[in-house]
Amino acid sequence: MSTNVPALVGTPVEDVLTPCLLVDLDAYERNVERMANYINGQGLRHRAHAKTHKSPNIALDQIAHGAVGVCCQKVSEAEAMVNGGVRDVLVSNQVIQPAMIDRLAALARQARVLVCVDDMDNIDQINAAALRYKAPIEVLVEVDVGAGRCGVAPGEAAVPLAKRIAASEGLRFAGLQAYQGKAQHVHDFDERKGRIDEAIAAVKHTVELLEAEDLACDIVAGAGTGTYTFEGESGVYNELQCGSYVFMDADYQRIKMQDGRHIDDFENSLFIYSTVMSKTKADKAICDAGLKAQSVDSGVAVVFGRDDIEYIGASDEHGVIKDQDNVLRLGEKLKLVPGHCDPTVNIYDWYVGVRNGRVECLWPITGRGMCL
Amino acid sequence: MSTNVPALVGTPVEDVLTPCLLVDLDAYERNVERMANYINGQGLRHRAHAKTHKSPNIALDQIAHGAVGVCCQKVSEAEAMVNGGVRDVLVSNQVIQPAMIDRLAALARQARVLVCVDDMDNIDQINAAALRYKAPIEVLVEVDVGAGRCGVAPGEAAVPLAKRIAASEGLRFAGLQAYQGKAQHVHDFDERKGRIDEAIAAVKHTVELLEAEDLACDIVAGAGTGTYTFEGESGVYNELQCGSYVFMDADYQRIKMQDGRHIDDFENSLFIYSTVMSKTKADKAICDAGLKAQSVDSGVAVVFGRDDIEYIGASDEHGVIKDQDNVLRLGEKLKLVPGHCDPTVNIYDWYVGVRNGRVECLWPITGRGMCL
Repeated sequence: MSTNVPALVGTPVEDVLTPCLLVDLDAYERNVERMANYINGQGLRHRAHAKTHKSPNIALDQIAHGAVGVCCQKVSEAEAMVNGGVRDVLVSNQVIQPAMIDRLAALARQARVLVCVDDMDNIDQINAAALRYKAPIEVLVEVDVGAGRCGVAPGEAAVPLAKRIAASEGLRFAGLQAYQGKAQHVHDFDERKGRIDEAIAAVKHTVELLEAEDLACDIVAGAGTGTYTFEGESGVYNELQCGSYVFMDADYQRIKMQDGRHIDDFENSLFIYSTVMSKTKADKAICDAGLKAQSVDSGVAVVFGRDDIEYIGASDEHGVIKDQDNVLRLGEKLKLVPGHCDPTVNIYDWYVGVRNGRVECLWPITGRGMCL
Repeated sequence: MSTNVPALVGTPVEDVLTPCLLVDLDAYERNVERMANYINGQGLRHRAHAKTHKSPNIALDQIAHGAVGVCCQKVSEAEAMVNGGVRDVLVSNQVIQPAMIDRLAALARQARVLVCVDDMDNIDQINAAALRYKAPIEVLVEVDVGAGRCGVAPGEAAVPLAKRIAASEGLRFAGLQAYQGKAQHVHDFDERKGRIDEAIAAVKHTVELLEAEDLACDIVAGAGTGTYTFEGESGVYNELQCGSYVFMDADYQRIKMQDGRHIDDFENSLFIYSTVMSKTKADKAICDAGLKAQSVDSGVAVVFGRDDIEYIGASDEHGVIKDQDNVLRLGEKLKLVPGHCDPTVNIYDWYVGVRNGRVECLWPITGRGMCL
């Protein structure tokens, strides 16, 4: 990792080595502030999702702007956050492997730790670990509000799980995890809102069922960058889990608002910086950012601020740029917006933070590859 | 990286933490031997491509089986190989950024270093660095034989570049780089062979043009796992650059041989090891290997050795497994064949080598993320 540093603090941006991840610090800071202003203004809590950035530097910045802590998707990712100074972490996912349940409980000795469950036996295993480590763990029941992944169905199925948590000596029942991950990238406004309206109704019903059993949901959690205003103004969700807003990406910017315009709440602050490495053809150029410089699950990268050229294809270490006017030159540098920020970030070891044309910071992506 | 070790030597395979990359050492070793036997038997040289595995352990194993050295796609990847004990490295790609040209020349003080070019000025820049570091660099002219990426057109365009290299005091003209990367994954046998036949003819013509100018091509290089027998039996190529054969992947196994059967020269030796982390639905299961555990550019992972279940979708940290007979159980472990091995490997820090049901070795993927 240390041999792969793309720049030093003070390096002019044109001399930063490529491919690497650039962060436009001004745009990034505006994004952090805008989301904080919205969530704080609504009187809600923000538990920012660290699966996007995997960086304690950014997590602590979000917390400084009012976030109560972070979400992580993996125990090892949570360890990276706690090792970087974060003291309040929700693993917004199931932890099943016995060794990882132990690591979760061990982490709860250093920080406030919360986790999600959708299985009765898993509750007993987490409780046993919490007792073994003498470290209380807060537990949310995950309900599947349409993403079709983890979680029990909303409604009655959540009740026995919540009861079991509440009856477990090492655990505390903390509420509901209800993230509609499939709705975030639905481009059409009405369809996206419709899916969250369904989720809100299902969550409201579940909260009421639990309250009838004297099981109060301190936390009703969910929402992402694509839908946060819907959950935020629902009167049901009280803790939002937005992540991608810090960076944005090409796919998020394809989603539309009510008036038909593309979403513009947040700015592109993350770029794959790339160099033209071959220019032997008049109508195209080859750049140095291919499949090992991005995840293409949501489409290839988009060249930022240029409509005269287009990134049209990727192989392992090469990107093909359509250059019909033959304007690109060998060695020229390009800023590419990743198709999907989260899995793209997971490839890199460093953020190169730039302001006023120079590198201002190098943030290690210490949660990179922390998939356990 | 060290906090993310999925196992220890001696760990039973069922206790290895997931997701991680498993290597079936018996299958891997058979693959290495089979390719070595073929290439050595043809009287050719093998310069194995390290962009697949990014591991000095595997590179040294390939060299022990007769490979003359390795190819890398990036200078930082080549540094990882030299730091791991490899002493003969071709960067089978252009090196354009001034700082990376310096690093290439510096590396040539420690190892035999070769590089490819397709631009006249670039030759002069590499020569200047070679002279500055007092380290000779061998240079191949890259010709584009159909991949549509780097390289000049075969034929006359190669001659002035070769002459310039030969006239450069710090460089040695070493031959031609002529890899048809676009042909490797063509599933149909005749179409795949046709593309390589075209490449062979173009390369033969180029070699003859160079010979007429007293520019002998010591190295005529190319070929990959999908086409190596065509180049190997061409009488034109003399150095093969196969990489994926050590592991194989789902996409390579879709390509067909002359008799219509799928390619079976090599075995699956690389697996994404994954755990069922949620089983709340009768007809599907959720596993812990999603987009951050694989590159999906060539399709999602395929469950190994099972036709009763199917990996059908990936989100960031989740994989969806169709389980129509409801046979999977929470905590069950699965071996997944990656859709595309190279960019999948680039996500992980460790290979977990297993034999006879236990972990036998942990190989650090020291070239991981070495994209500079």
